[in-house]
Amino acid sequence: MTDFVHALQRRYAQPDSATPPGWAQATPDALVASLLGHRTVRAYLPDPVSDAHLHAMLAAAQSAATSSNLQAWSVVAVRDPARKARLADLAAGQAHIRECPLLLLWIADLSRLDRVGEQVGVAAGANRYLEMFLVAVIDAALAAQNAVAAAEALGLGTCYLGAMRNHPEAVARELALPPQAFVTFGLCVGREDPARPAAVKPRLDPSLILHHEQYRAGGQAEEAGLADYNGVMRQFQASQGMPLADWTQQSATRVRGPESLSGRDRLAAALAALGFPLD
Amino acid sequence: MTDFVHALQRRYAQPDSATPPGWAQATPDALVASLLGHRTVRAYLPDPVSDAHLHAMLAAAQSAATSSNLQAWSVVAVRDPARKARLADLAAGQAHIRECPLLLLWIADLSRLDRVGEQVGVAAGANRYLEMFLVAVIDAALAAQNAVAAAEALGLGTCYLGAMRNHPEAVARELALPPQAFVTFGLCVGREDPARPAAVKPRLDPSLILHHEQYRAGGQAEEAGLADYNGVMRQFQASQGMPLADWTQQSATRVRGPESLSGRDRLAAALAALGFPLD
Repeated sequence: MTDFVHALQRRYAQPDSATPPGWAQATPDALVASLLGHRTVRAYLPDPVSDAHLHAMLAAAQSAATSSNLQAWSVVAVRDPARKARLADLAAGQAHIRECPLLLLWIADLSRLDRVGEQVGVAAGANRYLEMFLVAVIDAALAAQNAVAAAEALGLGTCYLGAMRNHPEAVARELALPPQAFVTFGLCVGREDPARPAAVKPRLDPSLILHHEQYRAGGQAEEAGLADYNGVMRQFQASQGMPLADWTQQSATRVRGPESLSGRDRLAAALAALGFPLD
Repeated sequence: MTDFVHALQRRYAQPDSATPPGWAQATPDALVASLLGHRTVRAYLPDPVSDAHLHAMLAAAQSAATSSNLQAWSVVAVRDPARKARLADLAAGQAHIRECPLLLLWIADLSRLDRVGEQVGVAAGANRYLEMFLVAVIDAALAAQNAVAAAEALGLGTCYLGAMRNHPEAVARELALPPQAFVTFGLCVGREDPARPAAVKPRLDPSLILHHEQYRAGGQAEEAGLADYNGVMRQFQASQGMPLADWTQQSATRVRGPESLSGRDRLAAALAALGFPLD
């Protein structure tokens, strides 16, 4: 029995789980190296993602921590080209949503707890609070990231889709979501087109992200670090044939006001309509 | 050069990175098996977590996807026993917060973008919207989960701490956070005490979490699946010497109303005080 099958059996406390194909040899180092090697893949081959790979991603997702073991998330797997095309239209028309063979919609899902409450005769009165919405969003995000780590270990590429929040009610209707369920983000999954490879994008220096004991806000070290990163990103942009721009300028423009949010400035109203008053 | 060092150099576009110790041999399968083998560790040895391991966790965290490359998160590493004790007091007095050698506080951080905006003369007007808060929370969660995956690959144990949201303003003061920064959750990190080992907790059957094409709400299959899971969890509870209870009953009780939220029913007000009006 392989490590994976054994781990799968323990995770679901079930003895009958099969090994997905595609487990290539790797070194150990490979584990963390695989996490560090993440790239956002926007160019996919049409090869389908097997159920075995989807199952492995799901098992990894379910293995992430979940607040009080509430498991307040769900995922919808979309492979139907027509549905993917409609969802792409709702997400700024991103071409990779049509192109990827598998689209996963990650759902902050309090509706299951609502049904559990009905079943045992205890109304889920806390579901209307911002805290429970946050629990569900965080559960969904931790799960999704484990699925991404598994997918990349299996040789698949991924792309998160925040644009799935551009039209939350329409996306919910397309997926027949019940109240108290919200597509937090989408995820393209598939095999990368080797003719159009993605690159590893450099990040801010770790000294700008990590603080010891207390937060150090701003100051000369941060200013210098941001200036350095503008240079790093310009080199990256040049290597990718992208237009050159300072990261600081791009980022400030991205958050300059409601008009820069692609319609997501009305997210609070959309969530209220979906059954999340966020008290 | 190892895979890891190469990956680290690409991630930060810097040529001078060292290998952390402790990279044991593992098989490939081991990669996904490590994700599936997650356990919540609440019993720690006092052995410190090395800076090398912390650096590897941080690099993995920074390698997670981040919306528009905004990198809207930060992390504070706390090792000082007195500060850990004060933070434990703010988080329901959980003993493992005092016991673990390293406490990481994961911050949804829009304050850096605010400073970036000041630097380039474009006010970050979108920061006051719920959407940007969600971007920051999701960024922090994806980062944290990659750090957990790396930590477990390195032989460390972890425990997420939602209770860090019990008193958000006091936690922010303890860490000297600027406005527009919020501790989304904490994370204990350390070597598990082998005398008090944690077990893999079984999850809901994947058929209850995964939907194909559209969401199927409720119905007999879900009812039967939940009843089965009550049985699975009772077996788990028995194996751990825990009191026996139905998961459905426990979960419904956990979300029955504001009084079950450990003070987090006032999270919206706390966030407003911290600079997140959530428009």
